[in-house]
Amino acid sequence: MAAAHEQGQTQKAFGWAARDSSGILSPFHFTRRANGDDDITIKILFCGICHSDLNFTTNELGSSPYPMVPGHEIVGVVTQVGCKVKKFKVGDKAAMGGLIGSCGTCSCCQDDMETYCPKAVTAYTFFEGQPINYGGFSDIYVVNEHFAIQFPDTLPLESGAPLLCAGISVYSPMKYFGLSEAGKHLGVVGLGGLGHLAVKFGKAFGMKVTVISTSPNKKEEAIERFGADSFLVSRDPEEMQAAMGTMDGIIDTVSGPHPLNPLVDLLKWNGKLIVVGVDVKPIELSLFPLIAGRKLIAGSAGGGLKGSQEMIDFAAKHNIVADVEVIPMDYVNTAMERVTKGDVRYRFVIDIGNTLRA
Amino acid sequence: MAAAHEQGQTQKAFGWAARDSSGILSPFHFTRRANGDDDITIKILFCGICHSDLNFTTNELGSSPYPMVPGHEIVGVVTQVGCKVKKFKVGDKAAMGGLIGSCGTCSCCQDDMETYCPKAVTAYTFFEGQPINYGGFSDIYVVNEHFAIQFPDTLPLESGAPLLCAGISVYSPMKYFGLSEAGKHLGVVGLGGLGHLAVKFGKAFGMKVTVISTSPNKKEEAIERFGADSFLVSRDPEEMQAAMGTMDGIIDTVSGPHPLNPLVDLLKWNGKLIVVGVDVKPIELSLFPLIAGRKLIAGSAGGGLKGSQEMIDFAAKHNIVADVEVIPMDYVNTAMERVTKGDVRYRFVIDIGNTLRA
Repeated sequence: MAAAHEQGQTQKAFGWAARDSSGILSPFHFTRRANGDDDITIKILFCGICHSDLNFTTNELGSSPYPMVPGHEIVGVVTQVGCKVKKFKVGDKAAMGGLIGSCGTCSCCQDDMETYCPKAVTAYTFFEGQPINYGGFSDIYVVNEHFAIQFPDTLPLESGAPLLCAGISVYSPMKYFGLSEAGKHLGVVGLGGLGHLAVKFGKAFGMKVTVISTSPNKKEEAIERFGADSFLVSRDPEEMQAAMGTMDGIIDTVSGPHPLNPLVDLLKWNGKLIVVGVDVKPIELSLFPLIAGRKLIAGSAGGGLKGSQEMIDFAAKHNIVADVEVIPMDYVNTAMERVTKGDVRYRFVIDIGNTLRA
Repeated sequence: MAAAHEQGQTQKAFGWAARDSSGILSPFHFTRRANGDDDITIKILFCGICHSDLNFTTNELGSSPYPMVPGHEIVGVVTQVGCKVKKFKVGDKAAMGGLIGSCGTCSCCQDDMETYCPKAVTAYTFFEGQPINYGGFSDIYVVNEHFAIQFPDTLPLESGAPLLCAGISVYSPMKYFGLSEAGKHLGVVGLGGLGHLAVKFGKAFGMKVTVISTSPNKKEEAIERFGADSFLVSRDPEEMQAAMGTMDGIIDTVSGPHPLNPLVDLLKWNGKLIVVGVDVKPIELSLFPLIAGRKLIAGSAGGGLKGSQEMIDFAAKHNIVADVEVIPMDYVNTAMERVTKGDVRYRFVIDIGNTLRA
């Protein structure tokens, strides 16, 4: 599925790229491959800004190649289709997430979880030595149709874009680990881009949802705006104590080191704590509470293409979109700064179609 | 189910008790309750020695009440049955594990997992303030029939005794977490009382089994004696590196702090690491490998009564027993010392019936 890289780079493209670890983005001309037999070319209309875009443009892992065009929450309209393409025709709305290739034969790919394929190819390159790809802060994308999903007509493009990464990042583990059963009690740690979507999915699944946050000032939003049933301030020992043993599952969307045992304590016996916020530093963990309550801690890095299509169809059916701040392309550097500070409710989406100008 | 405590203590009993945190055991006369309507009285024939007996007799958790009669891997013969008893008649073989009471109404009890009941009552008391019970290093036991299981006629009593704790401690999570599918690859960390039974169950389930141990000198036993397919020395970085990503699940039976990330690395994507060796000290853990491979770490504290009956029937069908060293009662203090040093292959079992004398 990833073989088309060697085709000629005949399509001119334009985007904004970071040139070094300052992460500052500026206009950048490049090329994309010719549209192959299994490919579609997408004219990009909107692209979300994910926190990981910032991690990579600023080289936090130390392996970022430059120039780098970030962006992996992409929606747009199909402008070309290859002769073997079945899912799309010209004029269809299409969307893409962080993945554009995988081996197609390993157990992950066979199980429709291409994200975990050891040969997965990402929408833009963030490890040196891999084939260079440029992301969605750009005018067009050429992708094998397997790695694009059909974007429902009823879903708004701009607020649907973040579903492609933030949405599937919470939806996939919620479904896989059974944090989607009506009547069960779900905890959502962190009310950011991922967390606010987890609340919306949890309510659509018919669950009781409690938001767990360090910020008491998010209580009103959590309950009034997103319909959470309750709110826990994780820094308040009395509130945490009173909620012990009450939750069937917790999805933890917070990046950066934070203690997990207080979250484990919130779980009922058999409860599940699912960690989706990437953090490379080790944490300290007491295993005894896991043993005493047959509890588990698991991680998840999103879902595959089949799951992404299912997620976006579910979102369309239940009117689930991200709460977004739509910005013009030339606001992107300010937006990145604001992401650093957590100053966004709840996702920036760049209006590529109307504001990206060569 | 646990209400019979208040009945008269009319049955004379005799065992060996620890009197203080030296853990040294000596003869001890006490009483047990009259046989109630739902009770059976068991003449104890054999009782296994579990590492946790040592933890409690030596007061490692700081809450042990004395005198303490340890022992919770109990097999014997039924000598009295109450008028409401259905599962047993006088003369039947019966067995008991670590649990003699639970609330009967909570979700754990309803789910046949009484071990996790917040009101679970243990075969002997190891927390101050609870009703005093004395364990199986003694001549008789009186127990509600719900908390006793039928011991298969074809299973040897002495080598079957350790199944009641060591056996169910590995069998229950292996079944619950799906580490029991034929053809899957199971890792077993630690080749002790629990580990050697995990290997036997794994092979009976039709799995490929790899023993992971710090002791290279256990390789021959693991493979020749227990039928493990391979052996990994956990301290050998090259062996560990070569085995990365090869296992579907791992059951970790080692008590005491040890790093878990090298074990997580042995798992395939979606792999499960199940921790059953109790350790109260926190460990350091990197979550990123869990996220990148949708892996999980879970704990388990054994299984309920229904599961214990299933486990022992499975063991009888597949000729699974512990490898034991049968000892007389007056060897118990030496045996406890040897347990401290890990000098037992693989479980001590006290021949109560023939060697406990008042």
